[in-house]
Amino acid sequence: MLLHLSTWQEVETYLSHSSGIIIPIGSTEQHGPTGLIGTDAICAEAIAKGVGEATQALVSPTINVGMALHHTAFPGTISLKPTTLIQVVKDYITSLTRVGFTHYFFINGHGGNIATLKAAFSETYAHVADINLPKAYQVKCQVGNWFMCSSVYKLAKELYGDQEGSHATPSEVALTQYIYPDAIKQAPLTPEVAKGYPIYGAQDFRQHYPDGRMGSNPALATPEQGQQFYELAVKELSQSYLEFLQ
Amino acid sequence: MLLHLSTWQEVETYLSHSSGIIIPIGSTEQHGPTGLIGTDAICAEAIAKGVGEATQALVSPTINVGMALHHTAFPGTISLKPTTLIQVVKDYITSLTRVGFTHYFFINGHGGNIATLKAAFSETYAHVADINLPKAYQVKCQVGNWFMCSSVYKLAKELYGDQEGSHATPSEVALTQYIYPDAIKQAPLTPEVAKGYPIYGAQDFRQHYPDGRMGSNPALATPEQGQQFYELAVKELSQSYLEFLQ
Amino acid sequence: MLLHLSTWQEVETYLSHSSGIIIPIGSTEQHGPTGLIGTDAICAEAIAKGVGEATQALVSPTINVGMALHHTAFPGTISLKPTTLIQVVKDYITSLTRVGFTHYFFINGHGGNIATLKAAFSETYAHVADINLPKAYQVKCQVGNWFMCSSVYKLAKELYGDQEGSHATPSEVALTQYIYPDAIKQAPLTPEVAKGYPIYGAQDFRQHYPDGRMGSNPALATPEQGQQFYELAVKELSQSYLEFLQ
Amino acid sequence: MLLHLSTWQEVETYLSHSSGIIIPIGSTEQHGPTGLIGTDAICAEAIAKGVGEATQALVSPTINVGMALHHTAFPGTISLKPTTLIQVVKDYITSLTRVGFTHYFFINGHGGNIATLKAAFSETYAHVADINLPKAYQVKCQVGNWFMCSSVYKLAKELYGDQEGSHATPSEVALTQYIYPDAIKQAPLTPEVAKGYPIYGAQDFRQHYPDGRMGSNPALATPEQGQQFYELAVKELSQSYLEFLQ
Amino acid sequence: MLLHLSTWQEVETYLSHSSGIIIPIGSTEQHGPTGLIGTDAICAEAIAKGVGEATQALVSPTINVGMALHHTAFPGTISLKPTTLIQVVKDYITSLTRVGFTHYFFINGHGGNIATLKAAFSETYAHVADINLPKAYQVKCQVGNWFMCSSVYKLAKELYGDQEGSHATPSEVALTQYIYPDAIKQAPLTPEVAKGYPIYGAQDFRQHYPDGRMGSNPALATPEQGQQFYELAVKELSQSYLEFLQ
Amino acid sequence: MLLHLSTWQEVETYLSHSSGIIIPIGSTEQHGPTGLIGTDAICAEAIAKGVGEATQALVSPTINVGMALHHTAFPGTISLKPTTLIQVVKDYITSLTRVGFTHYFFINGHGGNIATLKAAFSETYAHVADINLPKAYQVKCQVGNWFMCSSVYKLAKELYGDQEGSHATPSEVALTQYIYPDAIKQAPLTPEVAKGYPIYGAQDFRQHYPDGRMGSNPALATPEQGQQFYELAVKELSQSYLEFLQ
Repeated sequence: MLLHLSTWQEVETYLSHSSGIIIPIGSTEQHGPTGLIGTDAICAEAIAKGVGEATQALVSPTINVGMALHHTAFPGTISLKPTTLIQVVKDYITSLTRVGFTHYFFINGHGGNIATLKAAFSETYAHVADINLPKAYQVKCQVGNWFMCSSVYKLAKELYGDQEGSHATPSEVALTQYIYPDAIKQAPLTPEVAKGYPIYGAQDFRQHYPDGRMGSNPALATPEQGQQFYELAVKELSQSYLEFLQ
Repeated sequence: MLLHLSTWQEVETYLSHSSGIIIPIGSTEQHGPTGLIGTDAICAEAIAKGVGEATQALVSPTINVGMALHHTAFPGTISLKPTTLIQVVKDYITSLTRVGFTHYFFINGHGGNIATLKAAFSETYAHVADINLPKAYQVKCQVGNWFMCSSVYKLAKELYGDQEGSHATPSEVALTQYIYPDAIKQAPLTPEVAKGYPIYGAQDFRQHYPDGRMGSNPALATPEQGQQFYELAVKELSQSYLEFLQ
Repeated sequence: MLLHLSTWQEVETYLSHSSGIIIPIGSTEQHGPTGLIGTDAICAEAIAKGVGEATQALVSPTINVGMALHHTAFPGTISLKPTTLIQVVKDYITSLTRVGFTHYFFINGHGGNIATLKAAFSETYAHVADINLPKAYQVKCQVGNWFMCSSVYKLAKELYGDQEGSHATPSEVALTQYIYPDAIKQAPLTPEVAKGYPIYGAQDFRQHYPDGRMGSNPALATPEQGQQFYELAVKELSQSYLEFLQ
Repeated sequence: MLLHLSTWQEVETYLSHSSGIIIPIGSTEQHGPTGLIGTDAICAEAIAKGVGEATQALVSPTINVGMALHHTAFPGTISLKPTTLIQVVKDYITSLTRVGFTHYFFINGHGGNIATLKAAFSETYAHVADINLPKAYQVKCQVGNWFMCSSVYKLAKELYGDQEGSHATPSEVALTQYIYPDAIKQAPLTPEVAKGYPIYGAQDFRQHYPDGRMGSNPALATPEQGQQFYELAVKELSQSYLEFLQ
Repeated sequence: MLLHLSTWQEVETYLSHSSGIIIPIGSTEQHGPTGLIGTDAICAEAIAKGVGEATQALVSPTINVGMALHHTAFPGTISLKPTTLIQVVKDYITSLTRVGFTHYFFINGHGGNIATLKAAFSETYAHVADINLPKAYQVKCQVGNWFMCSSVYKLAKELYGDQEGSHATPSEVALTQYIYPDAIKQAPLTPEVAKGYPIYGAQDFRQHYPDGRMGSNPALATPEQGQQFYELAVKELSQSYLEFLQ
Repeated sequence: MLLHLSTWQEVETYLSHSSGIIIPIGSTEQHGPTGLIGTDAICAEAIAKGVGEATQALVSPTINVGMALHHTAFPGTISLKPTTLIQVVKDYITSLTRVGFTHYFFINGHGGNIATLKAAFSETYAHVADINLPKAYQVKCQVGNWFMCSSVYKLAKELYGDQEGSHATPSEVALTQYIYPDAIKQAPLTPEVAKGYPIYGAQDFRQHYPDGRMGSNPALATPEQGQQFYELAVKELSQSYLEFLQ
């Protein structure tokens, strides 16, 4: 059940039997010469819809732009500051808690969002209590990172080994190829790619990772593998969501 | 050209001949018993894509959640506070101006966003100058509200007269029916519907507009009309965008 | 009844029969070679006092500095950022609602304030509810722009036609001449004046409107016309205020 | 020279020989049964105008509402939060420094503003440097509290002794009587009035100072004394301003 | 009783008989060629511990970094912006009031903190009321500046006369020598030292006070004098704290 | 070399050969019936000093209060909100970068700080670039969590097995016993202790972890073990710091 395709009365009915909601969150950032800028949002949204179908859960619209400041030296990246993203998450949860939601399951497609999401959850628990919302003390948030699912991680290791890397990975590129087969990109990739250098500011990132990839070889990706990742992630996160509700 | 389906190198190429971008912005809010909660985002996104195709412009991911605090007494509404939305817009434009964009055309599906967007533009012009971005003085923002296009307005008047109302209107419902024909909703609508009362806070709004509609009769909507609105809006806003670039 | 010339006990008495208050808001910004920098505040304050007398309403001190970032490339302009003005309005209304006021009628002299005021109202409705003020749900705000009163607009059209323009207009200059006859300014005005260009940032504004006027010919203004505008605006806004209270 | 009665070109001329400006700041707060709510703003504004005349200095519009949170349990008080007032001051000074002002002399009528003003100055010095304004390093702010002028203090002691108190004092009431002789208030005053209790929150303040006065007997005030205070304050602060400029 | 060396159950017991707490606050800023960068925090912490022992009061961990923006042109200074320090103080008091504390006695070692602390107190009184904490209306804050104790001031005058100065003073240096005898510094001091110039921004400060001292001769300091200051300050502030509790 | 025991001239000298600094950060929060409220700050500070000695690095004063909102239902906890802590970290790094520091190594004693610290680093990299600090692009931050050092983790496993738990652990209690042997606490501990439940808001936390421990048995701790942990952590983090500098 997709929130944006529902009416408020359908949501009211939904709330009579569940107070959980799935919120997909991605990022709009460079993903190397062949990765889509929307990769993280595309993956999170597709998997969230799959989990929503599998668990009869309501799925909110996707937060398309996340915390990607370190990618902003590349054209096309859009990023919120961490403090902005914290306000956004706080506003989402405040709106929804006001009408009875209590369990927020963020399906996340971007590693760079994790720290800020966790900070936002802490800020939000205190905020809903401060404004004395009736269900404040029942509010619970959880992040489900599809790319960190153990089954996903295992498959990526099997398929790509070290060439999975940590940004613009073949696994995420494969997933976008499965979702958008018409948007598969071709571009020359240097065989050697930087890896292992920590992430600091945007200029520093681009200097050390000049084409945007971090140790990855996205040329290995295929749409068929993308489908495998999709199915594994949906299965594992559906399980997580159901456990979270209990 | 959709940003989320592009690579950063494609965006770099785009920037060599254009510094304009279209940003769809909607809202996630109740739209009466038969209107989709995502109506404003759905309409803005579809029209933005149409304008992007017609003008070869880059289209960013949609800002799905806008300023809808007055609808938050209805289940399913999610709203940013105005100050949060201002930060979000500022962060978007700061990210994009840093790499060379200068012209921001927001295609908007929600009346409630307009004031905050305008406030955000003022805040942003000053901010990009304060942080001394090279192109700060060239930054320009404009809002194109599809529902206020003169051709759209005229058609809505012809088709629905007074029953167009001002929220959960047949014109916007028709447009969502055209875009999502599988999500056409049926629900009983009272023949009499409140209208003309100003918008204040959320409780007050719900008290005066108990089913969420403001003077509208969305039962008049058809997908065919939706297509007409779509085409008119795309045509008129494409023209606006091209004028804006000059 | 002017708040700054009242005692707290007089306000307490006032609150026993009315919970409305008029808040004049202007701007401190360039108004061309012959317009006073305080024009918008002067006009708003004078009209607010007139409305207060006509309706027995309490009038607060004037917010002299508003949102005029686009005028800050001219000496003498002072502007709040939109987010600052939102905080100011929120603080005003919170203070006053705490002791029993509920109806806030802003008499505004500056077009550039409108968007931010509307954003501020939305932010404030949510805020007073969040902090659980007893009368939170009764709080209502309205903007009355004197220069947009239909009678004012009609007279300006009659008197000045196209030379009314949209900033440093003869109508507002006339009004300040009526209020401050000793501060009527003379300066050479070019016959041709820029008009029709949209408002973006401060540098861009000054570049396109080098002497600060927007399509206006303030040399047409007379104090007598100012008085006419004053009387029309007071009459029309008094009516609006009384309707707002009901 | 009053900013609100000047044109931008007059300000430009002024800036060719001075970069100083006087900013009156008051408060809108209860002043006991006979004191005007606008007392602090009225006094600051009148004295600032006097100083402006005496020193040929430019005087900005008055900040009418200051930091008076501790008075908000009395009807009619309007207060900014300290953090809001800091933003306001920062915005004022940023606007003015951008066009060449560097010396900001705040003539203050309210003890409760002092701490926040000083905090605002520190915040602002860093801010104008952070945004790299050309004259950032020359920006200097000073507060001149008229009621703390030594000549004023001495006269108040002579005239009223212990009955001067520390809020709703006969000296400030006298000054408003001189400025607004038509707004002299009569109300019964208990002979005994609380004093010496520190200021904490609003409820606590009203509980300890039930009629709003702090140890004062404003019944002693006369307009003639008000004139004396006015003249002493103008003289002493004019001297301070001229020293500040050097 | 030191908070950081206590268990939560011990604090629970403490709260059964007292709701007061002492919060030391200092600064991390240059103190001239021979003064320790931590001087203000070191002094505040030592005296706070002494007062805690003398009065059986709970002492919180020290706020080591305060408002020292004007010292940031010297290496080693760390400063919070005033608005940040206000948030910090608000968060401290909110946390502690939530579990039952109501009386906050800040023992302060830095003049530059005073204004911001007072602003923070006002902000906080309103905040704890806004979020409806049960004990909101009992919250009281006070600053005890050890260097402004009358006994301390008198001794400093006796020992150093005009050479006490106002920053990097022999009295505070003496106190740090008593507390950290192993960290007594030697460095050449020019006999003449700037004094009397007001504090504005950081660059301006360093330009006028090139070695960081303000009119002081810290070479006069001895550890024995430090002990005297320590004992006087502990005695006087212990008295103040006990009076504050009543 | 401890910053608070240094002079600014010593820091200037230090900067001629190193631009790195170690910043200890802890928390002030309940640590079960026998753990000190200052545990996390105490441990971080002691280890930071050890690392500073081992590597000749400068060590800043400790951030004693961190992000511990989930512990605020227990008396004695003090927490910053995540957004406050982000501002604090931003202010620290901005102050220090202004004078030439570039490498910030946070030695952290509290798991709850990690997410907010990472968010703060991202915010700060962008901020120092926005304000155009000369060394902005060289700024780098890293967190070293002593309790996650592999050698520490291994020893804790060997000594305590499952009874290490995840809060109020015997390893951290042991370390505080080594540092403050006079503050070793005795209190009855239930043999069974809750574990495995995720962390949400403060009320929820206390409900699930009624005595504050999370799966730990701190009764196993001894000062001798504390010394072992100290030495392991100092060694491992010294190595990390030196690698970070390169």
